[in-house]
Amino acid sequence: MRIGELSRRTGVSVPTIKYYVREGLLPAGQLTSPNQASYEETHIRRLRLIRALLDVGGLSVAAIREVIVAIDDPELPLHEMLGTAAQRVAPSYDGAAGGQTEDSRAAARKAVAELIARRGWRSHPLSPAGEALAVALAALEDVGHGSFIEVLDDYADAAEGVARADLDYVARNVAREDLVESVVVGTVLGDAVFAALRRLAQVDASDRLYGTER
Amino acid sequence: MRIGELSRRTGVSVPTIKYYVREGLLPAGQLTSPNQASYEETHIRRLRLIRALLDVGGLSVAAIREVIVAIDDPELPLHEMLGTAAQRVAPSYDGAAGGQTEDSRAAARKAVAELIARRGWRSHPLSPAGEALAVALAALEDVGHGSFIEVLDDYADAAEGVARADLDYVARNVAREDLVESVVVGTVLGDAVFAALRRLAQVDASDRLYGTER
Repeated sequence: MRIGELSRRTGVSVPTIKYYVREGLLPAGQLTSPNQASYEETHIRRLRLIRALLDVGGLSVAAIREVIVAIDDPELPLHEMLGTAAQRVAPSYDGAAGGQTEDSRAAARKAVAELIARRGWRSHPLSPAGEALAVALAALEDVGHGSFIEVLDDYADAAEGVARADLDYVARNVAREDLVESVVVGTVLGDAVFAALRRLAQVDASDRLYGTER
Repeated sequence: MRIGELSRRTGVSVPTIKYYVREGLLPAGQLTSPNQASYEETHIRRLRLIRALLDVGGLSVAAIREVIVAIDDPELPLHEMLGTAAQRVAPSYDGAAGGQTEDSRAAARKAVAELIARRGWRSHPLSPAGEALAVALAALEDVGHGSFIEVLDDYADAAEGVARADLDYVARNVAREDLVESVVVGTVLGDAVFAALRRLAQVDASDRLYGTER
């Protein structure tokens, strides 16, 4: 199809499509004449993936490029890809919480290492996800909510349930490309799904507890 | 204390503190002379809250102002505050997924309404959280992952567990100001905590399933 039809079918404007090609997010179309290129169904699917990562996942163009490189790299071993794809799309908390003290960060790192040991998780405390957790826990401590740590295992129980569901979903997709894409999409959009579900469940729980005031 | 000490104790620069005062995020200090103001411990706690919402929660200055107005409003009834505080800080997915078709959005809204009815949740499908969920589900459908909906109830089970833990935590804080703040901080930072835990649990689950390849 021509670029105009690609634009119409995806709702992405022609200049934006050209921008994604220049940025290496989208493969160029097949040239059919010096001024015209032809696009395939794979371009539609890739464009929708880009928009979902951008609009719903909130990823930067640079982060999306990294994710797409991972999807398209046939050399990346399956277990490594599955183990790390989630981390590639994990939000980076570099330099987060400027006011975070070294004390609260060190205490939070210790809490993360203890949690991982207690749960018997085969994941590393100093991985990006472990660091992200430590930053969030230190931020809670710094705003006077250090006792949040008391409900951390309830959160961990829920996280195990979601991770099992994620892997179940991934295991149903047999093709390698679909497998990587499932992990990436499921991780980014799964966060959005879970955050929304959590709010719906909170509204329900708080209505049951405090709704009688009405 | 003077503004220099406030800056030193929070790690927030003096110009940034002045910017927060101008933007209405931080109350002005008590003037002790025409050129000097005095700040209290409450300013330290409020500054840390602002940095946590900004750096870890990723909220905009405008969103932080809304949250702070909710915390400081003594007229807002408790049940309303608790029921809506979570939604105030919910990320807005307005205009997200430019390529999202009306069909997939309508189907996703129906799935959200069915889920809420099936779980018996006292929350509304067209609330911001319900809409956010519909947008995420429609985005999954548009990138060819519509079957993700099969694991939605596993996610909902986990969300109920987290919401119970959230309310347990909130219920321990008796003072009204602490109560509102707990909901807001717990919601924003709780998302960061849960996303990190989910990745750690995913790495563990994928290592158990696929790690033998190594």
